[in-house]
Amino acid sequence: MNAPIPPRIRDAWYVLAWSHEVGRKPIVRKLYGEPITLFRASNGEVGALVDRCPHRGVPLSGGVVVGDRLQCPYHGWEFTCSGRCEAIPSFLGDPDHVGRRAQAHAVREQQGVVWVWGRAGAEPTEEPFHFEYAGRAGYTEIRHDVQADATVHAVAENALDVPHTAYLHGGLFRNADVRNRITAEVRRWHDHVECEYIGEPRPTGIVARILSPSGGIVTHYDRFFLPSIVQVEYRIGDENHFVITAAGTPADDYDTRLYAVVALKSRIPGFVFRVLKPLGLRVFAQDAVILAQQTENTHRFGEEVYASTEVDLIGPHILKLMRRAERGDLGPQKAEPWTRSVEMDV
Amino acid sequence: MNAPIPPRIRDAWYVLAWSHEVGRKPIVRKLYGEPITLFRASNGEVGALVDRCPHRGVPLSGGVVVGDRLQCPYHGWEFTCSGRCEAIPSFLGDPDHVGRRAQAHAVREQQGVVWVWGRAGAEPTEEPFHFEYAGRAGYTEIRHDVQADATVHAVAENALDVPHTAYLHGGLFRNADVRNRITAEVRRWHDHVECEYIGEPRPTGIVARILSPSGGIVTHYDRFFLPSIVQVEYRIGDENHFVITAAGTPADDYDTRLYAVVALKSRIPGFVFRVLKPLGLRVFAQDAVILAQQTENTHRFGEEVYASTEVDLIGPHILKLMRRAERGDLGPQKAEPWTRSVEMDV
Amino acid sequence: MNAPIPPRIRDAWYVLAWSHEVGRKPIVRKLYGEPITLFRASNGEVGALVDRCPHRGVPLSGGVVVGDRLQCPYHGWEFTCSGRCEAIPSFLGDPDHVGRRAQAHAVREQQGVVWVWGRAGAEPTEEPFHFEYAGRAGYTEIRHDVQADATVHAVAENALDVPHTAYLHGGLFRNADVRNRITAEVRRWHDHVECEYIGEPRPTGIVARILSPSGGIVTHYDRFFLPSIVQVEYRIGDENHFVITAAGTPADDYDTRLYAVVALKSRIPGFVFRVLKPLGLRVFAQDAVILAQQTENTHRFGEEVYASTEVDLIGPHILKLMRRAERGDLGPQKAEPWTRSVEMDV
Repeated sequence: MNAPIPPRIRDAWYVLAWSHEVGRKPIVRKLYGEPITLFRASNGEVGALVDRCPHRGVPLSGGVVVGDRLQCPYHGWEFTCSGRCEAIPSFLGDPDHVGRRAQAHAVREQQGVVWVWGRAGAEPTEEPFHFEYAGRAGYTEIRHDVQADATVHAVAENALDVPHTAYLHGGLFRNADVRNRITAEVRRWHDHVECEYIGEPRPTGIVARILSPSGGIVTHYDRFFLPSIVQVEYRIGDENHFVITAAGTPADDYDTRLYAVVALKSRIPGFVFRVLKPLGLRVFAQDAVILAQQTENTHRFGEEVYASTEVDLIGPHILKLMRRAERGDLGPQKAEPWTRSVEMDV
Repeated sequence: MNAPIPPRIRDAWYVLAWSHEVGRKPIVRKLYGEPITLFRASNGEVGALVDRCPHRGVPLSGGVVVGDRLQCPYHGWEFTCSGRCEAIPSFLGDPDHVGRRAQAHAVREQQGVVWVWGRAGAEPTEEPFHFEYAGRAGYTEIRHDVQADATVHAVAENALDVPHTAYLHGGLFRNADVRNRITAEVRRWHDHVECEYIGEPRPTGIVARILSPSGGIVTHYDRFFLPSIVQVEYRIGDENHFVITAAGTPADDYDTRLYAVVALKSRIPGFVFRVLKPLGLRVFAQDAVILAQQTENTHRFGEEVYASTEVDLIGPHILKLMRRAERGDLGPQKAEPWTRSVEMDV
Repeated sequence: MNAPIPPRIRDAWYVLAWSHEVGRKPIVRKLYGEPITLFRASNGEVGALVDRCPHRGVPLSGGVVVGDRLQCPYHGWEFTCSGRCEAIPSFLGDPDHVGRRAQAHAVREQQGVVWVWGRAGAEPTEEPFHFEYAGRAGYTEIRHDVQADATVHAVAENALDVPHTAYLHGGLFRNADVRNRITAEVRRWHDHVECEYIGEPRPTGIVARILSPSGGIVTHYDRFFLPSIVQVEYRIGDENHFVITAAGTPADDYDTRLYAVVALKSRIPGFVFRVLKPLGLRVFAQDAVILAQQTENTHRFGEEVYASTEVDLIGPHILKLMRRAERGDLGPQKAEPWTRSVEMDV
């Protein structure tokens, strides 16, 4: 049995690397299973070429940057960042020809991030996501990327799901024994969905204690933005503001990389990060294990049919938005979101 | 080329474990490639659930037994041995709902064996096989399970085949040099087939010498019972009776486990078993190697067409019965079996 | 995405082994993915049987040679070099029967090489290729076989391609910096293609210096003969003649073995070979790496569409001949070849 094909949103920006990772030595990243080589030309521009020379099909990533061009290691053909072939050694004719161009992806480099458009040879129809709190005054920032053997949808749903924390991460965030009844309000726009948790006391786990030792009113939002960006925002009291924004990249259908930018306003940001980062990575490691098992079962059973309840607050909406984006039809952009209130125990 | 699909008999009982292997910590066994988790509830009942939570598809075998229910490790959903969902943490509604049930296989535990019905969600139409000599007065018993990378049919045919013993196991049972002409009588009923070897002297190999040092008249039967049970019975002289009965379980199409119950009446059962068990395991190890090669060639050549002669006494009949059982039509149950006599050299 | 199927020319001879490799102990070689067992019968004849016993499908290569027959390790069936079944132990009837024959390939052993006809059970329509300089007076000879994870076409094209040498093997043959304008004349007959390089000075790399320290006029031919034989011929000055002829064997679609016979006329053949052999193997190792990458990309991208220029002198012609041979129609045999002159830099 074959695993079902999860949504593939081609006409969108994805993070393929942090800026500092891309230099003159070409690197290879994947997007929906397609290897793309990233390199920095002498003029500083970043190229993102499909990792296949049009001549004999070998990976261009084995080549070297010569001026503003990437040179194939086999016969020395040279390609610009836009894929144009500008040198064919031995050959006395004009190298440029439509059939001899490398396939190129559009690239944007901003906020230290290399974004690549999902469809080779296509003109982007919008600009990449802006990390709102990155570099903002009063905020401290860390960046990190992690990987899970699961679909972008499963990773995004997991990142924004509250009920599993009491089980999979028992003790770290919440406990199954201590329960509070709250109201969750879900709001869905044409391209993003948000959940606000109303009446939530400061969670009892160690993570919340570190984030705000003095307690205080909790404001908690979980958000998803198309094509694959997740955001968790916590305000605890007046002084503590924590926003983690992570862009999900489908390296392959069941191989997702998350590029996370974490912004923190706190009196003691250094201490908080020193404690939170290893805890966060431990939590993600637990998620990665269960997500890989979910994927393994998808392959074993050849299906991805899930039975949801109303406390699966965001996951089904993410899938709805992704399916629409895959079809290229997000529907009308309304001022007021679709909303729903759900009572639940956390 | 793809390997052909061997018969898959779903409406039948298969041994998935010995009783002592199933406790509160869930274990995973496969049947026709489907992972099934076995666990023992607090009331002693054994549950056999398809190893996939209906919520997000993760393996239930990673969870823990809570009372009489198995709890999913991801979000804490809880399922009874019959698959009913009885707890969904965070959710304030009624957990039970047809779409939220785990798929369950019927279970019978008898004679220290855990039998599981081959079709999930189905009501068994008969009771499991009874090991006739297990626990019988005057008999000593050992149990053991082994595995081969081959179809149930290939394993069963191999277990009941005489001619290969002089070649693959040369010296252990029989020698290619010493030949005796005997008559084999094959009898096929609607659900089992038997072969009696008439006029067979005590084989010259070491196994027969140990079983009966003093010689004597040999009675030898090989039997196959649907869906996949093989039996070899030897009487040598008055005092020695040896019956090995092994239930074959198709963990996957080309991955068969044999659960063997060996009953022995002998003056010196302890000595016989001490010598026979390592010999038997050595013989099976040789069989497992050739069976794995047979499977490898099935995959390489994409076919399982075999050229038989009349000295392939039982194999073709096993296939006939298995094909009928797969279709669910064994034909009429006659009092007299179909019979055939074959002269051959052993 | 599945890789495209490269040409499969069945009605042709392929080298499966050097003569000295085939003895009484059966060995296994593959052709187009099919395992073939080679063995030498007591009468000296070489048998090439498809490595599957018709009885239960196990590999015959696990058996032993008994007289002029190969005996299956499972039940002891015995097969002649032509595949005829001449012994079935236990069975009292006539063993020979059309359904009980092993599939046999025709074999020719000449010039120390074991050639096998590509189609089992078929009568060869021609005799194998003759290595013209093998064993010729005044010539010294070495033989060697190498392997690459690539199609026969990709390996043959690579072996006869000049432009890549300045890049992939930079410094060994030619340098990208030093360029000479020459004329290449391509001549294609119905079953082979040749390229003569006119006006080529002695290449500047170390290989050419060793081959001819004193320089001199260079004559250089590259040739391809159906189904998969490549030849590179160099004459430098009067005294140095170097001919490497390599027969390509498609062990599988993307697994090619090259059986090379290298003939050399030189004043100092021992010295030349001592230096050239490790250099040649180093060059081939570089080729094998890039060829494996080409294959990997064929599998990744599911296509083998190549953009050629006129300096891909021979590769497109090889493919044309191979496609015709696959269809079994080479077209009329003309006295004059199709020719083309190409100016290029080397």
